[in-house]
Amino acid sequence: MKTLATLALVVATTNPAWAQFAKPEDAIKYRQSAMFVMQQNFSRVAAMASGKAPFDAKIAADSAAVAEFASRLPWAGFGEGTDKGRDNRARAEIWSDKAKFNDYADKIQAEMVKLSAAAKTGNLDAIKPAVRAVGGTCKTCHDAFQKD
Amino acid sequence: MKTLATLALVVATTNPAWAQFAKPEDAIKYRQSAMFVMQQNFSRVAAMASGKAPFDAKIAADSAAVAEFASRLPWAGFGEGTDKGRDNRARAEIWSDKAKFNDYADKIQAEMVKLSAAAKTGNLDAIKPAVRAVGGTCKTCHDAFQKD
Repeated sequence: MKTLATLALVVATTNPAWAQFAKPEDAIKYRQSAMFVMQQNFSRVAAMASGKAPFDAKIAADSAAVAEFASRLPWAGFGEGTDKGRDNRARAEIWSDKAKFNDYADKIQAEMVKLSAAAKTGNLDAIKPAVRAVGGTCKTCHDAFQKD
Repeated sequence: MKTLATLALVVATTNPAWAQFAKPEDAIKYRQSAMFVMQQNFSRVAAMASGKAPFDAKIAADSAAVAEFASRLPWAGFGEGTDKGRDNRARAEIWSDKAKFNDYADKIQAEMVKLSAAAKTGNLDAIKPAVRAVGGTCKTCHDAFQKD
């Protein structure tokens, strides 16, 4: 257990922004982990929306709820000083154009809330446009801020 | 997490148990990702409980809530056929003694619910025993089912 984690979080005024994690690599691993959980759950819903998987309303609703929750998490792992280290595809623009990045981070969370709400209706026709909106938001941000 | 368990049931008749993931490696990565998100958030609360970090009621409550949510997720990634592949420390006993493993999986989720509830009270004295219970449950399961 990396029990030092919070020590620095609370005294963040005198520590680098990744300091809620024990080390920058943990911040990178954290954002990657949260992104993976989000992506796996979103993909399951997207596969139903595109007809690649049979529609199951409960699985769609549950998966969308997990994706929505996970969408709130990665951003804590993008503090200053977390651009290098571990195998990661973050572009420098994340930190040099932070306002735009934060805007996209807000956007994906908002679209995930809509997708989760749509999935709760059990109506595939409501899910489809919400999946497209999430997918578009993922792509826009990755195109701008993720290395190939 | 009932979501993925349910999915596994749905596909169980015609697909291997990891089939809710594209490949077994994804299942392993999924459980590792969820565990990491859980561990990072739990550690933050544990550091406050042990006095290694100053107590911040809001951070404790938020972190415990994320840890609780994350505690529902890893189990979907332990389907049959996911023992090998990727760098992973799962012991064979996870699959040969599935009932015991599932019991521990239920237990950590239950203890996380209690921790999250305790953290919401903002009372550090309520958080301390709940942290100990979670930590003990983590250790018991890791001792039995995780390779050194």
